[in-house]
Amino acid sequence: MPPSGTKSLSKTRLTKEGGILERLNAGEIVIGDGGFVVALEKRGYVKAGPWTPEAAAEHPEAVRQLHREFLRAGSNVMQTFTFYCSDDKLENRGNKLTFTGTQINEAACDLAREVADEGDALVAGGVSQTPSYLSCKSDKEVKAIFKKQLDVFTKKNVDFLIVEYFEHVEEAVWAVEVLKEAGKPVAASLCIGPEGDMHGVSPGDCAVKLVKAGAQIVGVNCHFDPMTCVKTVKMMKEGVEKAGLKAHYMVQPLALHTPDCDCRGFIDLPEFPYALEPRALTRWDMHKYAREAYNAGIRFIGGCCGFEPYHIRAVAEELAQERGFLPAASEKHGLWGSALEMHTKPWVRARARRDYWENLKPATGRPHSASMSTPDGWGYTRGHAELMQQKEATSKDQLKQLFEMSKKK
Amino acid sequence: MPPSGTKSLSKTRLTKEGGILERLNAGEIVIGDGGFVVALEKRGYVKAGPWTPEAAAEHPEAVRQLHREFLRAGSNVMQTFTFYCSDDKLENRGNKLTFTGTQINEAACDLAREVADEGDALVAGGVSQTPSYLSCKSDKEVKAIFKKQLDVFTKKNVDFLIVEYFEHVEEAVWAVEVLKEAGKPVAASLCIGPEGDMHGVSPGDCAVKLVKAGAQIVGVNCHFDPMTCVKTVKMMKEGVEKAGLKAHYMVQPLALHTPDCDCRGFIDLPEFPYALEPRALTRWDMHKYAREAYNAGIRFIGGCCGFEPYHIRAVAEELAQERGFLPAASEKHGLWGSALEMHTKPWVRARARRDYWENLKPATGRPHSASMSTPDGWGYTRGHAELMQQKEATSKDQLKQLFEMSKKK
Amino acid sequence: MPPSGTKSLSKTRLTKEGGILERLNAGEIVIGDGGFVVALEKRGYVKAGPWTPEAAAEHPEAVRQLHREFLRAGSNVMQTFTFYCSDDKLENRGNKLTFTGTQINEAACDLAREVADEGDALVAGGVSQTPSYLSCKSDKEVKAIFKKQLDVFTKKNVDFLIVEYFEHVEEAVWAVEVLKEAGKPVAASLCIGPEGDMHGVSPGDCAVKLVKAGAQIVGVNCHFDPMTCVKTVKMMKEGVEKAGLKAHYMVQPLALHTPDCDCRGFIDLPEFPYALEPRALTRWDMHKYAREAYNAGIRFIGGCCGFEPYHIRAVAEELAQERGFLPAASEKHGLWGSALEMHTKPWVRARARRDYWENLKPATGRPHSASMSTPDGWGYTRGHAELMQQKEATSKDQLKQLFEMSKKK
Amino acid sequence: MPPSGTKSLSKTRLTKEGGILERLNAGEIVIGDGGFVVALEKRGYVKAGPWTPEAAAEHPEAVRQLHREFLRAGSNVMQTFTFYCSDDKLENRGNKLTFTGTQINEAACDLAREVADEGDALVAGGVSQTPSYLSCKSDKEVKAIFKKQLDVFTKKNVDFLIVEYFEHVEEAVWAVEVLKEAGKPVAASLCIGPEGDMHGVSPGDCAVKLVKAGAQIVGVNCHFDPMTCVKTVKMMKEGVEKAGLKAHYMVQPLALHTPDCDCRGFIDLPEFPYALEPRALTRWDMHKYAREAYNAGIRFIGGCCGFEPYHIRAVAEELAQERGFLPAASEKHGLWGSALEMHTKPWVRARARRDYWENLKPATGRPHSASMSTPDGWGYTRGHAELMQQKEATSKDQLKQLFEMSKKK
Repeated sequence: MPPSGTKSLSKTRLTKEGGILERLNAGEIVIGDGGFVVALEKRGYVKAGPWTPEAAAEHPEAVRQLHREFLRAGSNVMQTFTFYCSDDKLENRGNKLTFTGTQINEAACDLAREVADEGDALVAGGVSQTPSYLSCKSDKEVKAIFKKQLDVFTKKNVDFLIVEYFEHVEEAVWAVEVLKEAGKPVAASLCIGPEGDMHGVSPGDCAVKLVKAGAQIVGVNCHFDPMTCVKTVKMMKEGVEKAGLKAHYMVQPLALHTPDCDCRGFIDLPEFPYALEPRALTRWDMHKYAREAYNAGIRFIGGCCGFEPYHIRAVAEELAQERGFLPAASEKHGLWGSALEMHTKPWVRARARRDYWENLKPATGRPHSASMSTPDGWGYTRGHAELMQQKEATSKDQLKQLFEMSKKK
Repeated sequence: MPPSGTKSLSKTRLTKEGGILERLNAGEIVIGDGGFVVALEKRGYVKAGPWTPEAAAEHPEAVRQLHREFLRAGSNVMQTFTFYCSDDKLENRGNKLTFTGTQINEAACDLAREVADEGDALVAGGVSQTPSYLSCKSDKEVKAIFKKQLDVFTKKNVDFLIVEYFEHVEEAVWAVEVLKEAGKPVAASLCIGPEGDMHGVSPGDCAVKLVKAGAQIVGVNCHFDPMTCVKTVKMMKEGVEKAGLKAHYMVQPLALHTPDCDCRGFIDLPEFPYALEPRALTRWDMHKYAREAYNAGIRFIGGCCGFEPYHIRAVAEELAQERGFLPAASEKHGLWGSALEMHTKPWVRARARRDYWENLKPATGRPHSASMSTPDGWGYTRGHAELMQQKEATSKDQLKQLFEMSKKK
Repeated sequence: MPPSGTKSLSKTRLTKEGGILERLNAGEIVIGDGGFVVALEKRGYVKAGPWTPEAAAEHPEAVRQLHREFLRAGSNVMQTFTFYCSDDKLENRGNKLTFTGTQINEAACDLAREVADEGDALVAGGVSQTPSYLSCKSDKEVKAIFKKQLDVFTKKNVDFLIVEYFEHVEEAVWAVEVLKEAGKPVAASLCIGPEGDMHGVSPGDCAVKLVKAGAQIVGVNCHFDPMTCVKTVKMMKEGVEKAGLKAHYMVQPLALHTPDCDCRGFIDLPEFPYALEPRALTRWDMHKYAREAYNAGIRFIGGCCGFEPYHIRAVAEELAQERGFLPAASEKHGLWGSALEMHTKPWVRARARRDYWENLKPATGRPHSASMSTPDGWGYTRGHAELMQQKEATSKDQLKQLFEMSKKK
Repeated sequence: MPPSGTKSLSKTRLTKEGGILERLNAGEIVIGDGGFVVALEKRGYVKAGPWTPEAAAEHPEAVRQLHREFLRAGSNVMQTFTFYCSDDKLENRGNKLTFTGTQINEAACDLAREVADEGDALVAGGVSQTPSYLSCKSDKEVKAIFKKQLDVFTKKNVDFLIVEYFEHVEEAVWAVEVLKEAGKPVAASLCIGPEGDMHGVSPGDCAVKLVKAGAQIVGVNCHFDPMTCVKTVKMMKEGVEKAGLKAHYMVQPLALHTPDCDCRGFIDLPEFPYALEPRALTRWDMHKYAREAYNAGIRFIGGCCGFEPYHIRAVAEELAQERGFLPAASEKHGLWGSALEMHTKPWVRARARRDYWENLKPATGRPHSASMSTPDGWGYTRGHAELMQQKEATSKDQLKQLFEMSKKK
């Protein structure tokens, strides 16, 4: 059974109004898009490993199409496909590129704007963590990198800015400080879990630092599964409120089940990045995620690696009552499997109901696979209990040691 | 380690030569595309349940883009997106359509041709099984349906024809008989497994009937995982050779692990069609499939439901030595994970080798899921042994009874 | 809900009548015992590897107690604990023994008789396959070994004889020929699966050979899970009936789930013999087994490795209606979980019903384990499909090669 | 490879010296036995549900044999089989018993003493939690129940006393207070996990209360898997040390993997008590447990439900170097699989090494089973993340509510 009343919902919201803060201040739910690098890797346009976004300039039709699919699925935010698009990262990757960083950043802005204007979406210009920070460059040097990307965003007049995918809150604060100068709203999203950033700063403390630096929206993206990400944002929210501050909250998790992650997330799983398939969330998992995020008070709800357009559609369908409308792509979707009602086989027709899909624990088809891996970060552990202990042992001291160690390489 | 010599391969085959039979007769490997209905369902353009292809007319840019991705991944065949595009099926689905069947068929031909001409690919016009056959219409009535689609394919001058996704060899023979009239090569592909068609005709006998009806290429597509499909085509080949006939062979399986299927394939799995995610094949599974198909003497190797462009690229990469070149999309892929060699984390760099990915049995991230389901066709069974027994019990008599029963509904 | 009428059943059959053939001829169900070597290995009296039964002489109280538990659980047959108790095997094991083979055989007969006389059970003297056969000794030499054990069984006046755990029907036939001389009923049980013996002789042909050699009861024991064993005995029955012969049938399978076995059974599983725990059958699995065996026309139903007394009790409880009584040990068992009705926690009380336990698919508690292994017999295979293919490839020729090869070592 | 030097170890410790405190004070490792109710349920002498120990009087030979097996496996403590042997519990169970509580308690003491005197073991008289406490009887009434059992222990002159399997520290403290009167050493063991007792008292606080009441040894038993139990005892140790007190520590966990337990342990798992088989620990899991417990400073190391004699032997073998000797049962065990060295099949011989068994993650043979269940205590949860959240939500308030609720029934 579809949520009562859904049938009478209009298929799309017709009027477009307000910037990101106006919408969030008004209590609206803003739906983000999914991660472009992984989706486009599967489509043949991004190389796993470097994960750079030169496709924005090389294959604009592919990037445009993916924007359109997310828009159609319900996204209100078109993030510019500028992930890892800083000069130091682009050079770092070893390959000769046909386009300069600025050309890629500009192409990405144009594509996002073109599609955003086809519907009810805002354009968000995004910066992400840099190799310069990891190699201990000064704040001045790192900030100059962000500034160069910001110049493009300003020129192309994006609607707001996102500081995204930072493992170290220190670097994220630097990015917020740079981006604030443009006078546009700034969102800041770390790729951390409940154990905090790679220096061991807790989610609550991270959030406070980001808000104090000027971010109006804070949250997390990538690295962990949806429920872990929601939990982490809750901890951020508690920290911000405890500090007597105010913010909006965002979450853009993996579309992957990662119950076996350590503090560094899915990078450490032995399956990363080429054998993560069995972990993919179903649309029904997405319904649970969307509800959980909404209940936690998060109002900017999107996705990251592993999200396909139908995942975002599921988020939009779960929250259709609260939003008052369904996304365009729902014209090709029977809510809760209702499209099976006309199936010729009676036992398939019997699957056309909500509780069937809500309660199904899907078989994996993989009798030779275990359900959990052991992260391979710093040595192997055996068994569940030890894994738990390892997690506990991931103290700030160890994190700092690892960080120092990794810097030396 | 990449296959020796691969590095020196050119990235694409530059010249385009020959029709499907010329290529196969010359011993060339022809790589098919993946299934459009499932890929476009995830992108928001096809409705699961009816599975009809009106997107060819409604959203041509989305269909064109998917064609391009498969071309770039290595496909030599652009199948027209005309699955279930017969008038009886389109009417059957209950929704009002903006476009007529002929309009959709024509749009699909135009898109396939446009993209095929961008590279080294042929256009194949496809027909699939009809509700008219299942509701016991006469051969004359059913053939008229195929004829109507064939008229479009003739007008649009496709390169060859595919009779695809038939559960009953009788109907497939009718389709071959109609399509032969056009004077173009005809391929015939059933959606059956080793137990044969829904009347209990064995794969070998099915293949003989199809070849005698005039199909130059025979094989299977959909419904089962790659290894099961290859096994079924082997049985077809044995049947054809035993009968003293000649044919080429094709296989276009699911990109899903389905060790728990009964004779009707993945339709009967409780997860069909909305919770099949954990079963998705990795790119490394695809390497094994491509090699197995090649070793079995199959030379038209493609995919069906669940295939994404990167799956087809993996097929092309596995067979790169035999073909002499890599697909265009390999420019964004380090063979066997080699792109990880430049990763900042040493333990991720350690994954940049062939035997790592070949031997990894990826964890599912799903501790609450079993690895096998019980197909829900006609009653539930418990345990592995019973499942095996049920499979054995799926005799021709039972199949006939079920078929009669289903016709009555 | 217990089977209707069970409550009014007497707890034990009071009168003891007839030999094994009289019982089977009368249509009675005869319940066997479980495997002693594995049960006593867990108790500390048998060494895994050699698997010899010197405990009968060394620790008679432990062996007697196990006999008593099986008797109490419903067994009608006390097999003498003489597994691998031939002189060539005892010498082979490398350790110095305090007792001679004859002393052990005699002690085992005395213990079986002592306990059998405490209830309604028969004593069966058993011989098993010999290292002499594997090392190509002549039939005369091998038969002399069986004759030496038979002399003890004759002296101790066992009720009938069992030729048990033979991988090669040829050796089993020799054993039957020897044991027939004593004029007592002879049962013959191979440790083979549906693919037949290690020379590739089918189950049907094996059974015919054994019946022609004089065995009145034929069947299988050990090496495979219950459903596979029942299936194999069915094939034996078909063979015997097709040959126009008559026999009774027995089955004594593993109490382990082994869906991943190759033709040589659980020996080839990587977990053999020290990590088989997760495969153990529950009592509810035993109900299904007992019913399946009964329905297949098998009337001598027992167990082998992995069976504990409560497994045999479950067999006896499933067949209580047919037999007219429950075993003594059922005084300590609420049928179908009914003893939970008085539990203090309501959610535990809710488990006191038949369909709960019949349908439960018990979680394994092992998120780091896969559900299937790859047998390590002759090279490793990958994935389900290949495993199936390997099984098919296990042709007679390969089996013969392996056998020749193994003889050479 | 066996631990270096093990081969030269004597098979048993020959001299018997000292009481429990002398041994622990001297730094000796004391090995406990396994749980009798579950082991004897499998053997047919104890009824799951009531779990009462009338077998001590009804079937002394079965109880004596189990004591002997644990002694032979290395146990230094023979606990009297007096679990749930209080009058209120025995009456509660609904069945008429042939023997009085005092008769059962006395019989149990005699059996424990008889076997203890055959080797190097002490007799421990044990009391466990009472239905009287749960039904809110006064401390006076509850203490009278313990006193009645204590009178038997005093008369039979046991070596020390164990307060065991208490979910509520309050009741355990009462029991310690009673048992202290006898002037013998008192050990106190709760069946709690890291979340504390059923009133929400933390492990550390529980331990402090017990030590203050007079217990010289504190720890946990039952309800959770070994690693969880060791973790809980560590928390107890930290609590005791923080309070400036001193104690010895004991741990007697389940021999089951229970990663999916909530705070009430395995009782809430849907598989309890009749389908726990797949969770059973292997002997190699036991090695890890024993080492972990030893490293945590625990010196009284034993087992509870699910332990078979070979599990205790594995504990003794892991700690053989530290203790200086192997248990008697090791004469029937090749350390680390070394007994396979003489196997006829080369691939089985290849398993005769320590790292093989240490690293093996045993397949479950159960493709239709998930690896984790959802505890069914107070409503169902879905997915891993929610399960974690539920655990967190298991606050003291909820625990108290549940406790009140359960008292009302």
